[in-house]
Amino acid sequence: MSVKFVTSVQSVKSVKSVQSVKQAPWGKTPLSKTLAHAVVAVLPLLLAAVDSRAAGRTMADVLAASKPSDWRPLDPENTVYMDLPRGRVVIELAPEFAPKHAANIRALARGKYFDGLAIMRSQDNYVVQWGDPDGKKPVGAAHKTLAAEFTRPASGLKFTALPDPDTYAAQTGFVAGFPAARDSAQGSAWLVHCYGMVGAGRDNDVNSGGGAELYVVTGNAPRQLDRNITLVGRVVQGMDILSTMPRGRGAMGFYEKPDERTPITHVRLAADVPDAERAQLEVLKTDTQTFTDLVESRRNRQDEWYKVPAGRIDVCNVPLPVRKAQP
Amino acid sequence: MSVKFVTSVQSVKSVKSVQSVKQAPWGKTPLSKTLAHAVVAVLPLLLAAVDSRAAGRTMADVLAASKPSDWRPLDPENTVYMDLPRGRVVIELAPEFAPKHAANIRALARGKYFDGLAIMRSQDNYVVQWGDPDGKKPVGAAHKTLAAEFTRPASGLKFTALPDPDTYAAQTGFVAGFPAARDSAQGSAWLVHCYGMVGAGRDNDVNSGGGAELYVVTGNAPRQLDRNITLVGRVVQGMDILSTMPRGRGAMGFYEKPDERTPITHVRLAADVPDAERAQLEVLKTDTQTFTDLVESRRNRQDEWYKVPAGRIDVCNVPLPVRKAQP
Repeated sequence: MSVKFVTSVQSVKSVKSVQSVKQAPWGKTPLSKTLAHAVVAVLPLLLAAVDSRAAGRTMADVLAASKPSDWRPLDPENTVYMDLPRGRVVIELAPEFAPKHAANIRALARGKYFDGLAIMRSQDNYVVQWGDPDGKKPVGAAHKTLAAEFTRPASGLKFTALPDPDTYAAQTGFVAGFPAARDSAQGSAWLVHCYGMVGAGRDNDVNSGGGAELYVVTGNAPRQLDRNITLVGRVVQGMDILSTMPRGRGAMGFYEKPDERTPITHVRLAADVPDAERAQLEVLKTDTQTFTDLVESRRNRQDEWYKVPAGRIDVCNVPLPVRKAQP
Repeated sequence: MSVKFVTSVQSVKSVKSVQSVKQAPWGKTPLSKTLAHAVVAVLPLLLAAVDSRAAGRTMADVLAASKPSDWRPLDPENTVYMDLPRGRVVIELAPEFAPKHAANIRALARGKYFDGLAIMRSQDNYVVQWGDPDGKKPVGAAHKTLAAEFTRPASGLKFTALPDPDTYAAQTGFVAGFPAARDSAQGSAWLVHCYGMVGAGRDNDVNSGGGAELYVVTGNAPRQLDRNITLVGRVVQGMDILSTMPRGRGAMGFYEKPDERTPITHVRLAADVPDAERAQLEVLKTDTQTFTDLVESRRNRQDEWYKVPAGRIDVCNVPLPVRKAQP
């Protein structure tokens, strides 16, 4: 009750926090520019801590020292916008892991398949799911179902491995900005179910998915789903819209009444949207020294609040920074 | 699009799911009784799958075969009700791990400290936090701050260990219904930050918490907080109310405007509430064979939907069943 935090954005008075952090200073720029350039979404933590100790670097330090070449813009051919009444959700597709599903989702978006459909499921600590509640809308030039893309060969991937043990997989790490796992013995790799990951719903038949129904993880990483369903990408902006959807009261969190569903205004591929209407976002490349430094800053937290740094990190607790594109 | 699910509760038509499950049959009772007795909250999954294979048992099988003695009612002296405009949140305190904090929260509730205060923070994929936004309300007979209760001796605890490796701790498991970890070398044990766990916010000083400001985990398990802050219990009902709080736009998810906060109607100890107004809940004991069987049913999922059972489970992915008290 006694410590006051002074931040550059707002005054947060006299509150105890889970984490006693200050607003991260993104370089020594004027406030307006700082805000314009600020990281707009970092999973799983929005804001980084300020290092007040000499030794070690915080995530804020690491990001402040990043080079422009550490970042890449989202590829418009692999970026999907889902516009909802409360705002836009930006999804990056993962064609290295699910090329057929990515192509199909492109075709579905171009055919305006999702427009007017709905978010029809919100199960607490699990997933939010959207698609056609009636299952009758034609998919046009897209495929209704596709062969599963649960895993792929590990070879040919630029895999940034984490040093720490994982409960579920032999090794975890990152590929092209996505959380992933691999098994050297089997020679296979796969995307993993972290918060914000997007997948293609299926029935009991493994080849019954395809992307016409999608889900996003909104709870603790349901890693038991790994290798059982096709992950197609991740939400890079707008998780706050999806994660706060009222939970459905029906089985598995489905809404019981049609008017409880959230209508989907439309889904578009970024490449099909005029440049001025695109979300201008960059993501931190995960095959850079900056990202490796960021992981280390999170394995051993340096801000004064932490007394027992974990010394380890779970693949789903590593932030994947996103920021507004630099002019 | 082609497979229809027939459930005993509702008709979910023609939808593909992340998990193709049916309504779990809680014994062969009439529907109305089944619903009345249904497990009302299971973290992290609300509904269990129906086993359609002969081999192995699903969670539904295990729970249906449970004995009355496998369950215990919530202790009114360790149960806190937080009544919000949208409903009641039920929190079970963990006096084995945080006895001083539990006693202080009892004193705060009895002194009506929280009444009229507010939920003032909601950070996506992290925590929701409540307390006194102004930090000025007297705590009455309670303590303003307490010595940290981050860990305790491992001896003297009935620890049901999980067989699987954990990224953060030497061993994880459950004590008296709470997810926990222990380190035999150090002889210490602690509660772990899973979804739904409740803790006492603090400033940089480890002894600056006490329970007048509390937080609940609403995202992927932030295990880096383990042993850095005092966990005091867990939410056994009402997570859907807390987890869908609109995210705050300020630093760390604090609401920027007072009217964005959710007012706390009141917080009461169950023991101080007339019996008729109490939430009649039972939780599955975690030191029973039934719980061990449940863990196994989740380590190797038996329902037809799963093709590659994980064979392992993370401590934060084990459901902790709660049901209405049996008459």
